[in-house]
Amino acid sequence: MELTSIYAPILQDLNKVRDTLKSISRVDFPWLAEQLGYVVRSAGKGIRPALTLLSGKFYNYDLRYLLPMAVSVELMHTATLIHDDAIDNAVVRRGQPTINKIWGDENAILLGDYLFAKAGEYVSDTLNPRVIKLFSQTLATISSGEINQLLDAFKVEQSHENYLQRIARKTASLFSLATESGAILSGAPESSVTLLRDYGYNLGVAFQIADDILDFIGTEEKLGKPVASDLIQGTLTLPSLLVLERLPGDNPVRRALASRGNRKYVNEAIRLIKNSPIVDECYKIAAEYCEKARQTLKKLPENESHKSLIDLTEYILIRDK
Amino acid sequence: MELTSIYAPILQDLNKVRDTLKSISRVDFPWLAEQLGYVVRSAGKGIRPALTLLSGKFYNYDLRYLLPMAVSVELMHTATLIHDDAIDNAVVRRGQPTINKIWGDENAILLGDYLFAKAGEYVSDTLNPRVIKLFSQTLATISSGEINQLLDAFKVEQSHENYLQRIARKTASLFSLATESGAILSGAPESSVTLLRDYGYNLGVAFQIADDILDFIGTEEKLGKPVASDLIQGTLTLPSLLVLERLPGDNPVRRALASRGNRKYVNEAIRLIKNSPIVDECYKIAAEYCEKARQTLKKLPENESHKSLIDLTEYILIRDK
Repeated sequence: MELTSIYAPILQDLNKVRDTLKSISRVDFPWLAEQLGYVVRSAGKGIRPALTLLSGKFYNYDLRYLLPMAVSVELMHTATLIHDDAIDNAVVRRGQPTINKIWGDENAILLGDYLFAKAGEYVSDTLNPRVIKLFSQTLATISSGEINQLLDAFKVEQSHENYLQRIARKTASLFSLATESGAILSGAPESSVTLLRDYGYNLGVAFQIADDILDFIGTEEKLGKPVASDLIQGTLTLPSLLVLERLPGDNPVRRALASRGNRKYVNEAIRLIKNSPIVDECYKIAAEYCEKARQTLKKLPENESHKSLIDLTEYILIRDK
Repeated sequence: MELTSIYAPILQDLNKVRDTLKSISRVDFPWLAEQLGYVVRSAGKGIRPALTLLSGKFYNYDLRYLLPMAVSVELMHTATLIHDDAIDNAVVRRGQPTINKIWGDENAILLGDYLFAKAGEYVSDTLNPRVIKLFSQTLATISSGEINQLLDAFKVEQSHENYLQRIARKTASLFSLATESGAILSGAPESSVTLLRDYGYNLGVAFQIADDILDFIGTEEKLGKPVASDLIQGTLTLPSLLVLERLPGDNPVRRALASRGNRKYVNEAIRLIKNSPIVDECYKIAAEYCEKARQTLKKLPENESHKSLIDLTEYILIRDK
């Protein structure tokens, strides 16, 4: 299953989104152009902007509003990654040196701010007060989720529930912004707006769980960053939380936290998780959210993007990066 | 000249702005409530929100839109200060420990992001696409100005012109957002929007020059932060640039930069600037911008906030903090 074929109904417009993203590096200041050029070159898979466009296909698909919205969603995502990398002292992302690695943390903070601002400019081009407000509310939700994650770092006493709340805030909220805004901007009736929002939310939770599994079972080459980055940062995710639940008392995850990311214990934790049924269990939980996402789709009218949205619920579980 | 009397025509509404700012700390998460409570307690002079309200008095003063705009402007200002302090490793601001000092740089980045988001939420309540876009454009301008400042840090080869461009971006842009948005949201004709924008811009340039003078001639107690913080950070401002211009070759400012903020040279630079005509010269340049600001006011209709806006052009030059 290839993303290109999943994106088929909106591929041409997604390329317009990518062109627009590239255009933001055309600024008068050479120092800023250099940094922005670097950012837009190492673009991601484009799932979030694709979701906005696909969600816009059920009713009145109007690219005048859907295009800036899709650009805005991707820019917000990019800005949060730049700030996250500065916070985590991450050195590689998507196989490339991070902004903070090349230009320093201080610069990364400001470049992230600049990209939030550009995201805000694009969302204002939708001329829709409801999605504009939703955009800012989502950024507030993401930031508060990230603060929560930071304050919980290296703490052993965390619940499953707490994890789900956290990924809902830091990841699912942006997925649901992508789908909900696509619905609103295409004039969907309220019931469909809710369905597409719920689809995005459930897909986002599943996407983050799968990401958190890949963080343990992936390779550095495919991940584009070190394996078990989360545990090294002291962030407990579903696989490591399940280790703590299943092995009360001493275990490598507990030791990795207590030693603030000692690589010996982290490597032991990776081996333990890879060779346990925990990976399958986590995928099963992710699959439940995918199923919820598919259920909401059933209540929407048939259309050309229906199959793509179903395929995405499968793709995110089988991808290896 | 007291700010309270300058603010008289809008004092009651400015208090509503302050109450609204305080209300943002009422959130469900105790850890976030604590941080936000800390931020809104140590509020500043409120010049920017006051400018929005005063600028709204020339035409149709409608608090439904002016109030969220004024809140938004102050929140954007607060967020940029939090990020600036993290970037500068500043330990005190307004006499209180900074967010980064108490909760760490990582947390400061995310709390700043959260406040940008809240600012975005409030500006969306104006329901005015033009000011919403202007808001984001201003944030982009400020961030790029700050990146410029960062890249120029500790560089001796900087011009007067470069300094003025930088403060226009990082300070005057927010002042002009404050006044221009007040004009737009009160239904001012385009000619008046331009005049009020120009007033804000010129006042903002003068305000920053005065701030940069105070950074050298003020006391730590009044400033609420160490004297000559800018020079310690490697940021050249008008007083230090004039030293470099007037004393080509060896001088304390050049030494302070070369030593990356060595306190001995910084203290020599402070003494040199305090005991030279440079302070008066800088105030003279600031006064020229104030005069430009007053000239634009003359073309606006007489009204109750006219005098306040004139008084502000004088206040910012005589204040000691």
